[in-house]
Amino acid sequence: MTYHKTDIRVRYEETDRMGVVYYAKYFVWFEVARTEFFREHRISYRELEERDGVRLMLVDARCTYKSPATYDDLITVNTKITDMKNTSLSFSYEIKRGGVLIATGTTTHVFTNAQGRPIRIPQKVREALTVSAL
Amino acid sequence: MTYHKTDIRVRYEETDRMGVVYYAKYFVWFEVARTEFFREHRISYRELEERDGVRLMLVDARCTYKSPATYDDLITVNTKITDMKNTSLSFSYEIKRGGVLIATGTTTHVFTNAQGRPIRIPQKVREALTVSAL
Amino acid sequence: MTYHKTDIRVRYEETDRMGVVYYAKYFVWFEVARTEFFREHRISYRELEERDGVRLMLVDARCTYKSPATYDDLITVNTKITDMKNTSLSFSYEIKRGGVLIATGTTTHVFTNAQGRPIRIPQKVREALTVSAL
Amino acid sequence: MTYHKTDIRVRYEETDRMGVVYYAKYFVWFEVARTEFFREHRISYRELEERDGVRLMLVDARCTYKSPATYDDLITVNTKITDMKNTSLSFSYEIKRGGVLIATGTTTHVFTNAQGRPIRIPQKVREALTVSAL
Repeated sequence: MTYHKTDIRVRYEETDRMGVVYYAKYFVWFEVARTEFFREHRISYRELEERDGVRLMLVDARCTYKSPATYDDLITVNTKITDMKNTSLSFSYEIKRGGVLIATGTTTHVFTNAQGRPIRIPQKVREALTVSAL
Repeated sequence: MTYHKTDIRVRYEETDRMGVVYYAKYFVWFEVARTEFFREHRISYRELEERDGVRLMLVDARCTYKSPATYDDLITVNTKITDMKNTSLSFSYEIKRGGVLIATGTTTHVFTNAQGRPIRIPQKVREALTVSAL
Repeated sequence: MTYHKTDIRVRYEETDRMGVVYYAKYFVWFEVARTEFFREHRISYRELEERDGVRLMLVDARCTYKSPATYDDLITVNTKITDMKNTSLSFSYEIKRGGVLIATGTTTHVFTNAQGRPIRIPQKVREALTVSAL
Repeated sequence: MTYHKTDIRVRYEETDRMGVVYYAKYFVWFEVARTEFFREHRISYRELEERDGVRLMLVDARCTYKSPATYDDLITVNTKITDMKNTSLSFSYEIKRGGVLIATGTTTHVFTNAQGRPIRIPQKVREALTVSAL
C-alpha cells in the first residue's frame, strides 16, 4: 500500500514558547491524516461513528522527532496501514516539509462498539482498506 | 455573590511562539473555573450531564487581555454569576497573577437537554446557586 | 472591504464530550483565518514576526455561538477588518456551514515590538490592507 | 529512583466526541508532570530556559492506553527518569485513576542551547537529578 498524502498548514496555536510546534500536536496531525486516509478509501469515519456506532479506540501512539516544524510551515503527512488484525488496525506516518522527513509515527487502534467493547473490523471497512492495498 | 477562586499553573502547552499564553487558552481556564465554581456550590457538572442529561451550551464568550501570562505562572481565576434567567446563566471572570489583574472575561450559557433543546434551569441548580448568593 | 474566505475542516480534536466543537476552538479558527487574510493581502505574518520583530498582541476577543459545529464539518470563516487605528487593528468574523451562519466573532489587536511595547502599524502593512479595502 | 506524583483534574476541553480524553492530551499531562518533577528536584525548568538558555527538545514520545479517562476524573501521573546520557534524558510515566493504571508512557529529550544545538546536560541539573536518585 502506498502512502496517502495530507497537506497541513501549521497553525500559530500549535507552536509553543520554544518557537516550534508543541510535541503533542503531531498526534493531532496524525488524526487529521487518518480522517483523510479513510475518506480517500471511500470510508467516512464520521458516518462509521454516527450511523454504525463504531469507535476506533487508541491502544498505542508514538512519534519520533527529527527536526522541528514551526508556524506557517506547509507540511505533508504520509499515512499508510501497516497491520490489520481481527479487531485492530495500525497506521504508520511520515511528516515531511519541503520533501524532507521531519518526524515519523505510529498508532494502533482497536475497533469497539459504542459501549467500548472490542468488535471485529466491519466487513465494509476491511474491504475498502484491502482493495486499496492492491 | 463573592468571587470563587481557582488556582491554575500555566502549562507549557498553553504558550505560543510569542512566548506568552495563546489567547484561546484563557477560555479553557474559564471552563476549569466554572467546574470548580459548580463544585463549590455542591453541584457536579459531570453528574448534571451524565445523570440528568443536562447540557450547558455556550451562547457568548469574551475575554479582554491586559497583560500576558506565561509558562509556569501561578494564576487565579475569580468566577461569579452575573445573571440567571429562565434558561440561561452568565458568568464573569477575573484572572489575576500575584494579585494583579491580567484579564477579564464573560460567558453566557443556555441550559439544554441532551438533544440540544433549551430547558429551564433545573430547580436544584437554581437553588444551589441562589442560596450561595446570599 | 469584502470578506476573505477561509475553508476549514473540523478536526476530531476540536470536539468535546458534548459531541460538538469546544467553544475555545472557534478562536483558533479565527487565528487561522487571520493568517490567510494577511497572506491574501500579500503580507506574511510569519515574516512580520521573524524579520521585522513585529507582534500582534490580543486586546479583546469575542465569539457568539448560534448553532454548534461538529467533527468533519466543512466550515468557512469570513474575515474582514472593521477598524484600523494608529497602533491597533480589529477584525470581524463570520463562521458559516453550508451557507448558514453558525457563529460570529471579533478580535482587536495592538501592534508591538518584540519587547511588547505598542508601535504604530508598519507602513507596508497599512498600505497593503488599505489598498485591498478599495 | 521512586516515582514523583502529580495530581491532575481532567478538563472538559481534554475530552472529545467519543466522551473520553483525546489521545494527544496524555502528552500534555506528561509535560505538566515533567515540570513538577523538575520542581520537586529543585530545578525550575522555566529558569533553565529563561536564564540559562537551555532547551529540552523532544526526540521521542510514546503512550500506551489501557482504559479511557474522562471529564472531571482525578488522575495521578507518576514520573521517573529511566535514562540519563551526556546530552539526553528519558522519562517514564504511569497514569493512574483511583490507584488503577490506565496508561503508561515514555519521552526522550535532548538538551540544546537556544539555537537548537545539542549540549551536555548542565552540571547542576545532572547533580540535582542524581542526588535525588539515591
